[in-house]
Amino acid sequence: MSTSYHLHRARIETLVDGIFAIAMTILVLELKVPDLTDRRSVDELMTALGQHAPVIAAYFFSFGILAAFWLWHHRLAEKIRATDRYLLTCIVGFLSLVCFFPFAAALLGRYPTNVGALMIYLSVTGLIVFIQTMYFKLAVVRGLLLESVSQQTVLETHTSNLRSCAIFSLGSVPGSMRLNEWVALGAATLGILLLLQARRITAQGKQLGLVESS
Amino acid sequence: MSTSYHLHRARIETLVDGIFAIAMTILVLELKVPDLTDRRSVDELMTALGQHAPVIAAYFFSFGILAAFWLWHHRLAEKIRATDRYLLTCIVGFLSLVCFFPFAAALLGRYPTNVGALMIYLSVTGLIVFIQTMYFKLAVVRGLLLESVSQQTVLETHTSNLRSCAIFSLGSVPGSMRLNEWVALGAATLGILLLLQARRITAQGKQLGLVESS
Amino acid sequence: MSTSYHLHRARIETLVDGIFAIAMTILVLELKVPDLTDRRSVDELMTALGQHAPVIAAYFFSFGILAAFWLWHHRLAEKIRATDRYLLTCIVGFLSLVCFFPFAAALLGRYPTNVGALMIYLSVTGLIVFIQTMYFKLAVVRGLLLESVSQQTVLETHTSNLRSCAIFSLGSVPGSMRLNEWVALGAATLGILLLLQARRITAQGKQLGLVESS
Amino acid sequence: MSTSYHLHRARIETLVDGIFAIAMTILVLELKVPDLTDRRSVDELMTALGQHAPVIAAYFFSFGILAAFWLWHHRLAEKIRATDRYLLTCIVGFLSLVCFFPFAAALLGRYPTNVGALMIYLSVTGLIVFIQTMYFKLAVVRGLLLESVSQQTVLETHTSNLRSCAIFSLGSVPGSMRLNEWVALGAATLGILLLLQARRITAQGKQLGLVESS
Repeated sequence: MSTSYHLHRARIETLVDGIFAIAMTILVLELKVPDLTDRRSVDELMTALGQHAPVIAAYFFSFGILAAFWLWHHRLAEKIRATDRYLLTCIVGFLSLVCFFPFAAALLGRYPTNVGALMIYLSVTGLIVFIQTMYFKLAVVRGLLLESVSQQTVLETHTSNLRSCAIFSLGSVPGSMRLNEWVALGAATLGILLLLQARRITAQGKQLGLVESS
Repeated sequence: MSTSYHLHRARIETLVDGIFAIAMTILVLELKVPDLTDRRSVDELMTALGQHAPVIAAYFFSFGILAAFWLWHHRLAEKIRATDRYLLTCIVGFLSLVCFFPFAAALLGRYPTNVGALMIYLSVTGLIVFIQTMYFKLAVVRGLLLESVSQQTVLETHTSNLRSCAIFSLGSVPGSMRLNEWVALGAATLGILLLLQARRITAQGKQLGLVESS
Repeated sequence: MSTSYHLHRARIETLVDGIFAIAMTILVLELKVPDLTDRRSVDELMTALGQHAPVIAAYFFSFGILAAFWLWHHRLAEKIRATDRYLLTCIVGFLSLVCFFPFAAALLGRYPTNVGALMIYLSVTGLIVFIQTMYFKLAVVRGLLLESVSQQTVLETHTSNLRSCAIFSLGSVPGSMRLNEWVALGAATLGILLLLQARRITAQGKQLGLVESS
Repeated sequence: MSTSYHLHRARIETLVDGIFAIAMTILVLELKVPDLTDRRSVDELMTALGQHAPVIAAYFFSFGILAAFWLWHHRLAEKIRATDRYLLTCIVGFLSLVCFFPFAAALLGRYPTNVGALMIYLSVTGLIVFIQTMYFKLAVVRGLLLESVSQQTVLETHTSNLRSCAIFSLGSVPGSMRLNEWVALGAATLGILLLLQARRITAQGKQLGLVESS
């Protein structure tokens, strides 16, 4: 049983790293070599690339976002002892959204002024953030954390995850207001509820002496 | 000999994980950024993506299928001690179909109402299921399982593989009936034979006291 | 020094496995979803795919070739203790041709009746075979083999590599005759010289008692 | 803490190797199968490929450049004990440029006579060289090197990195002169300053008896 777990862990990590490596590299496929009428004209090339500037900026931005998700996932995964079918489902959902991410980035890069493209980009990113939070919460609930992970680390990680979700919900309010006011209201409410939940957990932790007052 | 086997095992697993990671990511390349006449129109973008809905749904479905195959392969591979040329041939055939899978998924995503595209998708998936079953059966026959794997586990794994093949054959009957009644009859017969074989093996195992009655 | 070698070995192998996984998967990108006038017509889809049949056959054939190269490389690499700059240059040249291979396969798949496309495919494959042979020969000459590898294994591996080169040279004679008779003559001469060299090495090995007479 | 570092190191290396493997393979996607009017004509195929010759040459050249960067990165990374957020930012920046590299190579391959395309290619390559130098310098400053790495190795590695930057700056002078004389002057000045800095560090090392006079 113990060996089977070790095998799985290495396998899952290789798959996760592979998918992130490819998703990050696929981002660049959206950059197309422009067609020039005068093949030796520096000006024409620079003008063509200048019009591509939002796509190029979106490439580096999205690359950074994926790198941050990759780092975050491994920070969480290194606290987890074993992976059951619930956690595995989370990981597969997470990876399917990571692979979907280059498409959302391409959409936003092509139509940077389209609120719909922005909302799809934010939704995909938001779903990834929520699935990651759920992944860690499930590992806690199902008792799959490493024994070396202290109760304090668990509380701090979970509230930090909740705050990431909250920041994300609140950050999407301005964009969603241009789309639909009810969506914006929902995002704002969700963000506030998440912040309150994070505060409540921290307060409980302080009472139990698990979290130091900051 | 022992070290050469360990090397091979790690190498095969890296190749398998790499190919799965790429095949899963390639699925998303089928999603094309739509061309909009009004670049800022949210409605037009949503309509265009709405028409893409079957392709997007097919992406997530196929991603799940590949993830299930990846998990299944590692569940089988972790029971196997060494890989000879027969098992290697199985793995290469398996991987060539896994890489072919995104093409079949693209075909079905583009022509969701075409029975031919459905049958190609089902055939590729079916072949993968059959090759996996053969892979484990070959490992049993050629004595390449780990010593720690009990006779009961072998029987249960093999009958579970056979049942997967059977479910697959029977599940493709409705689709194949629209194509050709003889194909449908063949699929139905194959499915029933596989179920009978699985039951026969379980019965033998019970007689030998290897499988607990459920 | 010892740790630095271990690190390098793992890194090189991950890069090799990654490049093979991607090159194998890129082969399938050459398969294009056909455009149908009647989206629900099974006949039209099957006719379109039937015209694609050489490309699909070339996909599975080339996948098998790459898998064979991958296996061959690891069979050689597992006998090698350390990698110096000469071996590394061989590996980079080898990998650049492996990545180039899908292009040669796409060329042959698109123009199966064009002798030029066939010759490019054979040249790339041939160069890969020659570089692999040189890679092992260099490792022998520079004393980089593992100590556990016997003199007999070295001789057998090297003559088997030379014979692969020879078979390849002779096999390309019919194709190259249609292109240019001097190229064909060169390929035939090379093949015979390689076979003679393989026989000469085996004969020397027998005199020294290193190879058993078969 | 120690285990968490080991985990991270393996993860970072897998991601780096994966991204390099994909970036190297993506280079070949720029090679397009030419459209022939006579599908069996060898002459037409060879003429079409002859016009592609700069793209094909650029492929092998860029493949070698990426392989050199990959080797260089691992030569530096194997001297580093732990990765903090500053080093991680360097690595992510480095990887985003490595993934961007195939786009710059495609630009230069399509417009080999365009000075602008050349300058973009040189800029991306130059940035990669500078980030690598900064990566090692940061590791030294922040005390993250392995204890087994001698002071002499550190000095030699750092001056060798600085000289690579200098050669790069001076090498881009001819190209940048055709673009803008001030850019050329800046590149020349930077190159000379870097060479002076490398010489100054070596002189200090000699005084301290850390570097042998060569």
